[in-house]
Amino acid sequence: MHNTSMDCIFCKIIARKIPSDIVYEDDDVLAILDIAPINPGHTLVIPKRHVRDLLDVSPEAAAKVISVAQRIAPALLKVTGAPAFNCSINNGPASGQVVMHLHVHVIPRHPSDGLISWVHGKYEPGESAALAQRIVAAMAVMPKV
Amino acid sequence: MHNTSMDCIFCKIIARKIPSDIVYEDDDVLAILDIAPINPGHTLVIPKRHVRDLLDVSPEAAAKVISVAQRIAPALLKVTGAPAFNCSINNGPASGQVVMHLHVHVIPRHPSDGLISWVHGKYEPGESAALAQRIVAAMAVMPKV
Repeated sequence: MHNTSMDCIFCKIIARKIPSDIVYEDDDVLAILDIAPINPGHTLVIPKRHVRDLLDVSPEAAAKVISVAQRIAPALLKVTGAPAFNCSINNGPASGQVVMHLHVHVIPRHPSDGLISWVHGKYEPGESAALAQRIVAAMAVMPKV
Repeated sequence: MHNTSMDCIFCKIIARKIPSDIVYEDDDVLAILDIAPINPGHTLVIPKRHVRDLLDVSPEAAAKVISVAQRIAPALLKVTGAPAFNCSINNGPASGQVVMHLHVHVIPRHPSDGLISWVHGKYEPGESAALAQRIVAAMAVMPKV
């Protein structure tokens, strides 16, 4: 018995109320092909329990979905011929998370496919050291996950 | 004593041969600010042992770096005011991995910053079902990580 959310498309997929292309399943995790793949074979590894994101899940449950991603990735590379992959979790709408049920993207990548682009910035002198100190201070007063 | 690679910039940072802005450290993991951040506070969580990527590391070691990312993320959000974050691992040069020493990117994200863009595709009818079957078959003959 897993916690579910009535309005969650992933909970409906897990409950077989919506069809999907399943690549892996065990008691805790379902892995399916993304219907709007960045590249063919783009897979979503989803805990069956309805949790929102990495801030809503125990380290043990996070470890479980990551370990499944580790098992799936070699098969994705073999089948798609991709030499590389991204393993990404979006946490919150501003990060690109569309379904508010934790999922790990495993995305086969090919040389120069240019499909995920990162725009890098630069710190002013001293800016990063000051920022690091504020992060350390914030962590010191936070409860452990 | 950790495995190191003579030519690895992260091993040199871990050994304090190159300076960095450290936000977290324990026996197994170092977390630093990325010097070319996608957004301020962009953090790299790095296992001290020199391993290449998710395919080169035990589930236990992967779980450790992810658990540190889970601990750091709330502090990053608090300090930067970001409501969301990406947690991403690039595996192989074609995925955007630049330093061949496993690292988890924890990237604060703001609404409409548009800093990471994903170009989504679409499967032809039947294509995804056939692909899923091939992935399942490939997993069936692979050794467990």
